[in-house]
Amino acid sequence: MTIITPKPISGFPEWLPEEKILELRLLDIIRSNFERYGFSPIETSAVERTEVLTAKGGNDREIYAINRLVAVDDEEGRNLALHFDLTVPLARYVAQNFSKIAFPFRRYQIQKVWRGERPQSGRYREFYQCDIDVIGDGEVSLFTDAEIPSVIYSIFRQMEIGPFVIRINNRKILQGYLRHLGIPDERHSETLKLIDKMEKIGIQRVFAELANTGIQEDIGKKLIDFVDQQASNDETLKKLQSINTNETFRQGIDELATVVKHIRALGVPEDYFQIFIGIARGLDYYTGTIYETVLKNHPGIGSICSGGRYDDLASYFIERRLPGVGISIGLTRLFSRLLQAKILSVGSATPAPVLIALLETDRITEYLSITTILREAGVNTEMFFEDKKLGNQLKYADKKGIPLVVIAGSEEFSQNSVKIKNLKTGQEKLVPKKDIVSGIELELNDLRSKNLYT
Amino acid sequence: MTIITPKPISGFPEWLPEEKILELRLLDIIRSNFERYGFSPIETSAVERTEVLTAKGGNDREIYAINRLVAVDDEEGRNLALHFDLTVPLARYVAQNFSKIAFPFRRYQIQKVWRGERPQSGRYREFYQCDIDVIGDGEVSLFTDAEIPSVIYSIFRQMEIGPFVIRINNRKILQGYLRHLGIPDERHSETLKLIDKMEKIGIQRVFAELANTGIQEDIGKKLIDFVDQQASNDETLKKLQSINTNETFRQGIDELATVVKHIRALGVPEDYFQIFIGIARGLDYYTGTIYETVLKNHPGIGSICSGGRYDDLASYFIERRLPGVGISIGLTRLFSRLLQAKILSVGSATPAPVLIALLETDRITEYLSITTILREAGVNTEMFFEDKKLGNQLKYADKKGIPLVVIAGSEEFSQNSVKIKNLKTGQEKLVPKKDIVSGIELELNDLRSKNLYT
Repeated sequence: MTIITPKPISGFPEWLPEEKILELRLLDIIRSNFERYGFSPIETSAVERTEVLTAKGGNDREIYAINRLVAVDDEEGRNLALHFDLTVPLARYVAQNFSKIAFPFRRYQIQKVWRGERPQSGRYREFYQCDIDVIGDGEVSLFTDAEIPSVIYSIFRQMEIGPFVIRINNRKILQGYLRHLGIPDERHSETLKLIDKMEKIGIQRVFAELANTGIQEDIGKKLIDFVDQQASNDETLKKLQSINTNETFRQGIDELATVVKHIRALGVPEDYFQIFIGIARGLDYYTGTIYETVLKNHPGIGSICSGGRYDDLASYFIERRLPGVGISIGLTRLFSRLLQAKILSVGSATPAPVLIALLETDRITEYLSITTILREAGVNTEMFFEDKKLGNQLKYADKKGIPLVVIAGSEEFSQNSVKIKNLKTGQEKLVPKKDIVSGIELELNDLRSKNLYT
Repeated sequence: MTIITPKPISGFPEWLPEEKILELRLLDIIRSNFERYGFSPIETSAVERTEVLTAKGGNDREIYAINRLVAVDDEEGRNLALHFDLTVPLARYVAQNFSKIAFPFRRYQIQKVWRGERPQSGRYREFYQCDIDVIGDGEVSLFTDAEIPSVIYSIFRQMEIGPFVIRINNRKILQGYLRHLGIPDERHSETLKLIDKMEKIGIQRVFAELANTGIQEDIGKKLIDFVDQQASNDETLKKLQSINTNETFRQGIDELATVVKHIRALGVPEDYFQIFIGIARGLDYYTGTIYETVLKNHPGIGSICSGGRYDDLASYFIERRLPGVGISIGLTRLFSRLLQAKILSVGSATPAPVLIALLETDRITEYLSITTILREAGVNTEMFFEDKKLGNQLKYADKKGIPLVVIAGSEEFSQNSVKIKNLKTGQEKLVPKKDIVSGIELELNDLRSKNLYT
């Protein structure tokens, strides 16, 4: 038989169990916070009709179509493709289920998406997105714009990934200011894309490229000075409010001031959010508040969570104005960067902190009963079933990162006891069999308090 | 603009939020039990190289290949396809990461898979599989075969889906008996496939079809009598042990007896598992213990969880014998059948049991502070942000299945209190603002104890 030697497919990341456990912990934190804030789960199928995915245009090159490997006559099966984000599927889902949904529709969605990126770019072709959106039927209160940073703050604080800041801006401020500078509306999009690049390519290059697009030097300088300001939130607001421009600009500032006020009321500390005029979120899609999130000590990672307010979610699928506010965490990318930057490090390769060793095969029912007692008490427990020497069993526990091994032979059983061996400290304790649950919990609490096990 | 009116794609199921919440509850039960038994999570990419998926052959017609919608020169991106199960990906993963894994490798995997089934068949083209396997390097103890039913028992008991029974058999018993009847080995596979169909098509048709394959009438009758026996586990074992046939048969019975003994030691009640000689699990893949699970009151749903022991997991990908035992729950199919049969019924459309009503917009910061207090106490809470009359807010809560609404206006605030309105009972309670958390928890516990909220 010919062996097919498996190798990774670039762009399709996979993790070892100890990494997957850590990724699951992050996914659990995200989900529980989404739920804490009253967002409802939905899951759309990985597959959409191609016409749905291409309705808006612009992403066609990234789309993976699916086709039966063996051609079959299947009318409905043709023209299907994998979704490349969760926003188009949300729009389609909301249009499709419009009458069954209560609005405002607060939904979360945590799913894989697929993009035909060039693998050389270091981007993933399959990755998790974790999205929340609040969709209104006709309108969505501006208070919602303040709640989004509060969810995000709550998530990243719980992840313990170091100091971060949620940057907040409002597209109307940028749009109003560009008009104020006399830059015509049809050139706003390309101008804002340059502004977005400032942190990456530097002020000088943005200045040069603005000139290339035909923007006069003094206008370019004014624009860069405007977006490059960084001060306390109150100072920035005050400065913005002093600029006399136009109605769009003023509306943007009023909205931003309201959002900032209510972010504070939701208890987000001042250190964790910042008015940042320099974020533009290239997409024309956004029309009001916009967000980005960066790790203070690792700015190179870029934004780890972005989003904003839009006027109309599903205009391609339903004749009804459905404005919304949303944000997305690209979890796979974030997770891999957190590992690379050693902001997170992997622990155990199993969810079980306890291994029951098998010393005397003819006493298997006694070992099984201990195993069952622990499991029924809610302790994740593995029982070793193979006929191996204790030394090999301890090595196995060590390789998997299991900190506690329950050891019992004739001697321990004759005393109605078991031995708990702590592989992190090397200590052993004899515990009455009836106290096995509390004995294990004591050891685990001790390990956790010393940060030797999570 | 042309509107694309969205419609479902047959074979790709989607759920409303209230259904998705219920599906997530089942997925959580499965995952937590897998972890309770010390299985480690892995997740393989949805995409495999086509040569990996077709290595074994037999499933080619079901495979969905993926191709870029817009043709690009991408050597590595060609010949990729979506996985159709989690067993082939596990085999590939184990071969690829062989040196990094501790054996026995106990892994769980909960993921979507895709199959190009004919949608007319009522089968899903996208569905969740929830798999556990224990893979050994060279061998896996027979004790493992007893542990698998214990996990399954624990899962379905917690799901509260009524009485069920895990059927257990051993392929060696069937193989030995077929040999004993003089049926040559090369015809065992087709014969066992017929045996597997007995519950579906009835004894008479199996009898006729056995004859069609050239099996003599008296032999066919003996075989059917043999597989059709149902008695207590001890009676069946005793009867089997009294049959004098061949070594394979005897080995199967010894294994089965050992497995039954240890299932009991793991605390699975006798009502929940049954030796059932009539299950054969068509696949040649299985070589020892085999499992199926049926709902006693809904036999028409068929097996909700099946698996068994195999001699070699990954022979196509690595030159190393890797035997294993595993089982798979087809969760999407199970979930939809449980809904159809009204064994489960949906509840709330949101994970939040509490809505904070917005009565006086200028007191928004007070409402926000109540919301934050509840969230920080771990209560999933939604705050209503839109400018709507209280009646509309209560209707919204009712439509989403939110049982508790916190109502506070000038009157309540002047007394430093809030009103908790219970929409299930219609009752209202005035509670001091400082006691909001315990007030909500009291109401929730009361609702839960009366089964009015889950």
